[in-house]
Amino acid sequence: MKVIIHQPSKFDETATIVDNLKNRKPVVINLENIDPDLARKIFDFCSGALYALDGQIQKVSKGIFILAPSNVDIAGDMTAEKESASLYNWNKSE
Amino acid sequence: MKVIIHQPSKFDETATIVDNLKNRKPVVINLENIDPDLARKIFDFCSGALYALDGQIQKVSKGIFILAPSNVDIAGDMTAEKESASLYNWNKSE
Repeated sequence: MKVIIHQPSKFDETATIVDNLKNRKPVVINLENIDPDLARKIFDFCSGALYALDGQIQKVSKGIFILAPSNVDIAGDMTAEKESASLYNWNKSE
Repeated sequence: MKVIIHQPSKFDETATIVDNLKNRKPVVINLENIDPDLARKIFDFCSGALYALDGQIQKVSKGIFILAPSNVDIAGDMTAEKESASLYNWNKSE
């Protein structure tokens, strides 16, 4: 089993992220330190890819997400789950 | 495959974290929002457990770590790897 960590700094790098998801590996992305517009673009691209792959996204913290392909489940304690409720509002709350 | 997210608020919860590691599940911990002394204590306890289990820790961001049992590899892009170099100095840099 492998977990990949990505801290993309350019939009081009999303292809590598999605390649890892297609290879059924969970990816942790850190979008904390990049421009909010770029972060949004990368997040939306990854969301689309995961939707296509029947995967899921879980928020860990502001700007930090676990992207899980369909073979990977994500479980969390109460607080983390509560946080994730605001996931798809991430764009707006930025 | 399962990835667990924990956002512990009490030291007691470290037992659950370590139980997940013993069950060979990777755990993402978020220690961002708790008292630095407690965060350090939890981090040290988890470090000890992972050492015992031949696992590894990878820093994702300040206060956010992936704890991986021995059956789980962690790979990352250059930036994330560079960040993780400061991992065992986390206590000091807090």
